[in-house]
Amino acid sequence: MADISALITKLSSLGLNNPTVEHAAADNVEQWAEVLAGASNVPKHVLTKTLIFKPKQPKADPVAPIMVIAKSDTAVNSKALGSELKLKEPRFASEDILSEMFKTQKGAVSPFALGNVPKENIAHVRVVIDKALLGADAVAFHPLQNTRTVFVTGETLQAYIRSIEGLAHVSEIDLAALSSDPPAQAAKKPAASSATAQASKVEEATGSAKLGIEIAKEADFSKWYQQVLTRSDMLDYYDVSGCYIVRPLAYFVWQQIQEFFDAGIRALGVKNCYFPMFVSQRALQREKDHVEGFAPEVAWVTKAGSSDLPEPVAIRPTSETVMYPYFADWIRSHRDLPLKLNQWCSVVRWEFKNPQPFLRTREFLWQEGHCAYLTEEGAMTEVRDILTLYRRVYEELLAVPVVEGIKSEKEKFAGGAATTTVEGFIPATGRGIQGGTSHYLGQNFSKMFNIVVEDPKATGDDKPKIHVHQTSWGLSTRTIGVMVMVHGDNKGLVMPPRVAETQVIIIPTGLTVKHSDAVRRQAADACLAVEARLRAAGVRAECDLRENYTPGFKFSHWEVRGVPVRLEIGPAELEQQTVRSVRRDTFEKTPLALAELEASVQLLLVNIQDSMLARARRVMDERIKMVFEWTDFVPTLNNKCLVVIPWCEREECEEQIKERSSRDELGDEPEDEKAPSMGAKSLCLPFKQPKNPPLVPGETKCVQCGQNAKRYAMFGRSY
Amino acid sequence: MADISALITKLSSLGLNNPTVEHAAADNVEQWAEVLAGASNVPKHVLTKTLIFKPKQPKADPVAPIMVIAKSDTAVNSKALGSELKLKEPRFASEDILSEMFKTQKGAVSPFALGNVPKENIAHVRVVIDKALLGADAVAFHPLQNTRTVFVTGETLQAYIRSIEGLAHVSEIDLAALSSDPPAQAAKKPAASSATAQASKVEEATGSAKLGIEIAKEADFSKWYQQVLTRSDMLDYYDVSGCYIVRPLAYFVWQQIQEFFDAGIRALGVKNCYFPMFVSQRALQREKDHVEGFAPEVAWVTKAGSSDLPEPVAIRPTSETVMYPYFADWIRSHRDLPLKLNQWCSVVRWEFKNPQPFLRTREFLWQEGHCAYLTEEGAMTEVRDILTLYRRVYEELLAVPVVEGIKSEKEKFAGGAATTTVEGFIPATGRGIQGGTSHYLGQNFSKMFNIVVEDPKATGDDKPKIHVHQTSWGLSTRTIGVMVMVHGDNKGLVMPPRVAETQVIIIPTGLTVKHSDAVRRQAADACLAVEARLRAAGVRAECDLRENYTPGFKFSHWEVRGVPVRLEIGPAELEQQTVRSVRRDTFEKTPLALAELEASVQLLLVNIQDSMLARARRVMDERIKMVFEWTDFVPTLNNKCLVVIPWCEREECEEQIKERSSRDELGDEPEDEKAPSMGAKSLCLPFKQPKNPPLVPGETKCVQCGQNAKRYAMFGRSY
Repeated sequence: MADISALITKLSSLGLNNPTVEHAAADNVEQWAEVLAGASNVPKHVLTKTLIFKPKQPKADPVAPIMVIAKSDTAVNSKALGSELKLKEPRFASEDILSEMFKTQKGAVSPFALGNVPKENIAHVRVVIDKALLGADAVAFHPLQNTRTVFVTGETLQAYIRSIEGLAHVSEIDLAALSSDPPAQAAKKPAASSATAQASKVEEATGSAKLGIEIAKEADFSKWYQQVLTRSDMLDYYDVSGCYIVRPLAYFVWQQIQEFFDAGIRALGVKNCYFPMFVSQRALQREKDHVEGFAPEVAWVTKAGSSDLPEPVAIRPTSETVMYPYFADWIRSHRDLPLKLNQWCSVVRWEFKNPQPFLRTREFLWQEGHCAYLTEEGAMTEVRDILTLYRRVYEELLAVPVVEGIKSEKEKFAGGAATTTVEGFIPATGRGIQGGTSHYLGQNFSKMFNIVVEDPKATGDDKPKIHVHQTSWGLSTRTIGVMVMVHGDNKGLVMPPRVAETQVIIIPTGLTVKHSDAVRRQAADACLAVEARLRAAGVRAECDLRENYTPGFKFSHWEVRGVPVRLEIGPAELEQQTVRSVRRDTFEKTPLALAELEASVQLLLVNIQDSMLARARRVMDERIKMVFEWTDFVPTLNNKCLVVIPWCEREECEEQIKERSSRDELGDEPEDEKAPSMGAKSLCLPFKQPKNPPLVPGETKCVQCGQNAKRYAMFGRSY
Repeated sequence: MADISALITKLSSLGLNNPTVEHAAADNVEQWAEVLAGASNVPKHVLTKTLIFKPKQPKADPVAPIMVIAKSDTAVNSKALGSELKLKEPRFASEDILSEMFKTQKGAVSPFALGNVPKENIAHVRVVIDKALLGADAVAFHPLQNTRTVFVTGETLQAYIRSIEGLAHVSEIDLAALSSDPPAQAAKKPAASSATAQASKVEEATGSAKLGIEIAKEADFSKWYQQVLTRSDMLDYYDVSGCYIVRPLAYFVWQQIQEFFDAGIRALGVKNCYFPMFVSQRALQREKDHVEGFAPEVAWVTKAGSSDLPEPVAIRPTSETVMYPYFADWIRSHRDLPLKLNQWCSVVRWEFKNPQPFLRTREFLWQEGHCAYLTEEGAMTEVRDILTLYRRVYEELLAVPVVEGIKSEKEKFAGGAATTTVEGFIPATGRGIQGGTSHYLGQNFSKMFNIVVEDPKATGDDKPKIHVHQTSWGLSTRTIGVMVMVHGDNKGLVMPPRVAETQVIIIPTGLTVKHSDAVRRQAADACLAVEARLRAAGVRAECDLRENYTPGFKFSHWEVRGVPVRLEIGPAELEQQTVRSVRRDTFEKTPLALAELEASVQLLLVNIQDSMLARARRVMDERIKMVFEWTDFVPTLNNKCLVVIPWCEREECEEQIKERSSRDELGDEPEDEKAPSMGAKSLCLPFKQPKNPPLVPGETKCVQCGQNAKRYAMFGRSY
């Protein structure tokens, strides 16, 4: 992308007469109008939109795109435009053209992208300027990014366009008049429900701006994440802060996880139940360490209707203290062990830190398992069995690699004896993220809640009591956030096939005005037939036969939503008895023979699933660095890596590492205010300890403090 | 059952020297001790238990049961007792013996049941009196019911037993001394965790009292219901009033309902999502009628940790006002319609009326569907499709018949246009119960929340706006309560096979001391083989191979839990290559050939499912009475029936019916304080209107007010 200051300099030299204005990101025309209304030094102006079309051309010809620079509320009738320019059927240009030729992307297109077009292409580009802009004193454009607006006169705009070397075709057209001719089918507007929504609805109808992802993952990860979630319809923001709406696309992922995990725990003998969401003050406060960990985040109900409750009740932040008083009732003999319960529910932790969708929310969905065993061995076996299931959820369903290990004393669950964890990695930020935890609680809670049985091995009348050994374990909708962060790209979500609600989207393509209705019907029928065949084969396939939308619009629509495979079917494909497949993860295009479609699509989905995991694992492996000198510690973190160090495992040392890694911060990485502080913490002591070099007890020293190292530990900045 | 006053008269004639005491129901020894401690006029006394055993006998011999009358805390060693009495292997007698010979049931057995034994049997009965009781001044017994205690001296007890004509065998034995011999395997106590629990744990270990159902459904329905739920381990009480623990047995039913219904709505194109449980005050109060309906029951979170929230947030009582502001955002064109969403969640309605497990609880699990359509027709079709699914959940899964219909204006959902409903019937109380409702909301909410699209049929520039037509529909865990109330009997739950976690329980039987270990192993192996075969055939089968428990104990254990089919396998069955099947619903016993076991068990399960529904439907049909005179109205209700009347459908008339049916109450039916008032309300206007006699518009009059009747309406007392 071109340098903005260079652009400003150039515009100034062309007669730029207004300042540029910086503002909050404007994702669409309404937002743009709004942020400008709130900014100072803004002249009276005309908002614009810039659209790129491509006419139908012989394949051998060089691509000849059309850039239309229009007033934002002017409807652009592509058919009429084609007639006017004597070009065949202009359609919205593909993402490939935007990125390869204009070095830009949907939502960020402006006239200034002309400066990016390679010399060998510029001669083939046509520019259309809306006459409505020409006389204006201030025409507003985003200069390559949507957090800034530049105001130029119509004349400066013309001057700029004239300044582009090699640009041969520039037309000035009254687009509003052109479009007011009886509208061609392709330009019909969908209904708009209100005046203010009108502009964006036109945008949507014409396939620009609001649909696509406008922020690059590498440019502003946090905004990219929010935009991917909202524009893919995975999630919406909600009017109670820290709470979000989990929309069907995301909930489907959760249901897939539920189905897999529920079958897994059923096989382990765990049964589902449901405990009330409310906890009495008394029960909540029974276990001291535990309650200290949660107390500051507990939400309290104090009123019902207009009456004050005689005693406030808490909403569970987790259910140890909800359940265990009843375990004491239910467990009367060693024959009642093991008791294995799980519940799918939501819990509430009213955090005051900055919330983040899926990762840190005040209410979230999860499962929590709570089991009681006669022996530590029994409990520990289950702790590890569950952790294996968590790893499998990440790796097999979400294609996200994780590292299994045990938490340090400082990081373990409050009130428990040991916490095992699966730790993920977000390459874009270089941060670790706790994926799911499986706790061995020891006898701590059973002592508090008096959950005892008589020792079955004892003889005689006065058999000694044994406090049961307990476990608890939880996995939440955070899983979905991790998946999005790891796989998403600048076009939106990339869904692993196993959890994608739509695995295959089928789109009719290659149809032009010259095709008869019969041919169109044939293509649509072929799409439906493919859908039916794939569904019968167990593939979640769907056709997009919506009229009034171009194939390009549909491509983008489903790319944002991360659908793993797109199948394109048109007259050419039908003639060859093939369909064209396009992978979402790599955009690799392959023709598939219609005859063996089921098998080849199934194979393709398996391949996508596998290669998504392999790719993510490769990145993670590359970014977990072994560090043996403290001087390398922070620079490695700053390089967006996690570190593995020989460590003494002392809590004091962990505090020092956190403190020193915040202080040593070099400052070349802007701190993300939405994320926790930059100090590194221990993520886990990996079960799979590095063998090379081996850690020699009594000899290998802790990287931070120089005392004897006990194990290798993985440290990192984290969520 | 014998008349209590006759018994008291008889005891008086034998020298009864203490008053009888009435008290709250005592379900077990601890409760008994507690209620007596709280009652007045209670002498210092000894608590007792009465156990019935049956020795092993040749089949041809008349049944010769042993009644043991013991001090409550004396452990009864059945093996030692057998040796003492020279009887083979006494085991706890089956429920059949209790009911057929002693006309009593588990938990209600007392010496006075001897008065019920038919003359032809009494000579074969043996009575054992604990010597510990003989010298006592006051020995406490329940005189055939557990809400009353009678105190007799040891002498009066002896006199009573002597008074039984034809009783031949009475022994006085020091049972404590007998049991202090090295304990035989069958009498081992399970571990007890505390002194107070000790007594009940002994009870459990010896298979008496606490396990079975002690309250007859027809005697005290409300207590029966609570006891069935808790003793079957379906539910437990919780320390926040109005909240209950849904234990695995009940949650399994809910998961079956979820699976069925979720597939049903998916086929209708509904997608699952999750909205936050919190609602802002502003959103909650937007729709006036609606909020008025819920406001008094809304729970408010006002604090988090130790901070007051700047603004309280409500916990959703239902999600109309949670969701619809977002519908307005998401629905931008008629192409976004229909929008069909559902969520599985819990909601909170902080009712101050008496709570009842599953039926009226402060938090409950449900699903709520919320859809938006362009037209009323589209919405109404869905409303009925969903109602059909609700009916199928009741009828096909839970074997509970329901009546489909529409609610009166008074009873419809607050803020909606029309409410359709499935109405169930609880024969034991003669009350109707709302089973699930599917609402047509009309355009009321879409007007409040401005959910509009442009009319797709309109032409021209200024297309008129259409407010969308909405639906909402919910089904809750109330389903489980209705199922229990309709099918449960005096032995506990009766589970319809489709929702039973365990459909078949396999128990080894007929093994005696004379059988070798090899034979025992053979029986156990046969049970396991049957379990494996049935599981492979998709039947949820389970073996109960627990040692130290008698078959009778196990029978009772699984009967309380309502397992539809019991299979008994012993040496006799193995010899004949059969298993003995016992139906839980009818106790019908049939031998099944091992060779075709899968098919015959599957058929049996289908038959049970079908006949449970048929039976319940027959009862319901008999108890829905058509009434054409007001004078018959209340007496019919008092006869535990619902009534169908020609009705004017005026709200004022409904008020009058409610008022008059409370006032007309005859008083011969004690009012259940746990239930709503006795006034009848309209349950629904059934879709299937009676045809005979036909309702003639303008001619047939309303039964209550005499104005013109519009339709037949079903009225009743209800939950």
